[in-house]
Amino acid sequence: VRLLLAKRAELRNNYAIEWRLTGVGSRRIGWIADPTGLDPEALLAGQFPSIPAWKTPHNLHQWLATADPQVFFEASSLDWRCGQPAIDHLKAALECGAHAVSANKGPIVHAYLELCALAKARGRRFLFESTVMDGTPIFSMFPHSLPAVDLRGFRGVLNATTNVVLTEMEKGLTLEQAVKRAQDIGVAETDPSDDLDGWDATVKVAALVIVLMGVDIKLDQIERTGIRGITPEQVRAARESGMRYKLICRAERTPSGIRASVKPEQLPLTDPFALLEGTTSAVRFDLDVFGLSIIEHKAAVIATAYGLLGDFIRAVQ
Amino acid sequence: VRLLLAKRAELRNNYAIEWRLTGVGSRRIGWIADPTGLDPEALLAGQFPSIPAWKTPHNLHQWLATADPQVFFEASSLDWRCGQPAIDHLKAALECGAHAVSANKGPIVHAYLELCALAKARGRRFLFESTVMDGTPIFSMFPHSLPAVDLRGFRGVLNATTNVVLTEMEKGLTLEQAVKRAQDIGVAETDPSDDLDGWDATVKVAALVIVLMGVDIKLDQIERTGIRGITPEQVRAARESGMRYKLICRAERTPSGIRASVKPEQLPLTDPFALLEGTTSAVRFDLDVFGLSIIEHKAAVIATAYGLLGDFIRAVQ
Repeated sequence: VRLLLAKRAELRNNYAIEWRLTGVGSRRIGWIADPTGLDPEALLAGQFPSIPAWKTPHNLHQWLATADPQVFFEASSLDWRCGQPAIDHLKAALECGAHAVSANKGPIVHAYLELCALAKARGRRFLFESTVMDGTPIFSMFPHSLPAVDLRGFRGVLNATTNVVLTEMEKGLTLEQAVKRAQDIGVAETDPSDDLDGWDATVKVAALVIVLMGVDIKLDQIERTGIRGITPEQVRAARESGMRYKLICRAERTPSGIRASVKPEQLPLTDPFALLEGTTSAVRFDLDVFGLSIIEHKAAVIATAYGLLGDFIRAVQ
Repeated sequence: VRLLLAKRAELRNNYAIEWRLTGVGSRRIGWIADPTGLDPEALLAGQFPSIPAWKTPHNLHQWLATADPQVFFEASSLDWRCGQPAIDHLKAALECGAHAVSANKGPIVHAYLELCALAKARGRRFLFESTVMDGTPIFSMFPHSLPAVDLRGFRGVLNATTNVVLTEMEKGLTLEQAVKRAQDIGVAETDPSDDLDGWDATVKVAALVIVLMGVDIKLDQIERTGIRGITPEQVRAARESGMRYKLICRAERTPSGIRASVKPEQLPLTDPFALLEGTTSAVRFDLDVFGLSIIEHKAAVIATAYGLLGDFIRAVQ
């Protein structure tokens, strides 16, 4: 909402896009809707209108009918096991005629083809640039800027929490202290298990394989090792011998299908991925025509918001 | 032509694009045209048809009238001083109703606004992805994948010859020996002056500033220092102290306009740009929403060809 406000003049002047916020759903305020428009500045200031709030999932269709959105943004927390409730939200939004924009990668892994088919049937877009590396061009880049390429595989550092934790452990912290530090700077969640056990990275690998390589891979087909088994001693010994631990994501096309993994690897300091620190993430695509690396430097929450904004512009143009 | 042939089935099946080669112009064979189609395999094998060849520029319009192209590819050598004859080629092609695709960056620096206006007036596209970092997504990425961003500046290593030469000088070669080596591997041209004096990189900086930052900068407004003044001793001394020389391109928006430069700089080995070797190039864009680096690894001539192919697909779709 803050970015929509900051870009309001630019959207109007350069893209002929006017917007109105007709509904919001969050844990704190429930699901509220007003087809004449909610006040975005008031919402940002924590002043919520005194109108009835619905509880989803039971009243999702009532909320949608009242908000009557042309574009729906899905940014609920990831449940990598089933992709819910995000999938139900996106389906309901598409069914009521809205474009569906998701920052939640669960629906890609569990319902990509279904959501694409539904969007196509309704003449709407299902877009999800923010699901991997925030608003960095990945999913929007391939069809438009990289047509007719053969994507043979990729390698990436795609999880910020483990990147911060491993860097802090190099400095001498224990895993627990490093996790605390990552939580203090707002990178790690209260329960960091999904990051530490490699699930977040595994879901990202699956999303890239499903969308960019066209193979409907399942999470249990991706070899997964988290970073809990790495001791501070190992991390520091690696550093002293000119190496750094990174949680590396990999996928490649083989004659027997996609081979994909997420696991800690020691990289020499001459590997550009060894230089990635903090919330900086990167992916290198192996294409038939060249190798292409994309690095997102020092991502903050505005980078995720920007991915949603970019999808909004692409959807309504 | 080789890439068009290799991708023929993919273009047909996935993009519904059929193509026919109706004209070719080169130093070796002159300008030949056949509206029924030239044989691309024969041309690649060096077997040229026994039809009359025109000499341009005088007969360019006759050649175009005979070839009657829907898409024109411009890949003549760069003349950074005036952008000719590429500008005349592109104008003539647009005027006869073809989309104009350029791998030559001279026209961007000397006639960008004019060519855009002409293309718009004729309802055709003027595209030029290959002019900077070959087919790597740069110009096609900004309008589509990065809408509504504020590009504050960029930093890049954009010239392969100087990159190869500086790396070879680190190994003990003189400038002359290193240039010879770059020529042997097909990176440097017979006369490497444009690379060594920083002109190639300066023209690329100008192209990025003009197109992506919307400022019609002139070449003499870009501070330019080549690499001829750097001795092998300096290069090796830098390496021994943990630094590497790279020819760094920079541009940034300031209150008094664009400040841009091309000059050798010493980078610490912790700078990702210090790791770039050979024909690998990179650019880091400073956006309001995040920092974004794009790296093209080990570019070969197919990477330039791919930029032309990508523009072809974008133009005709």
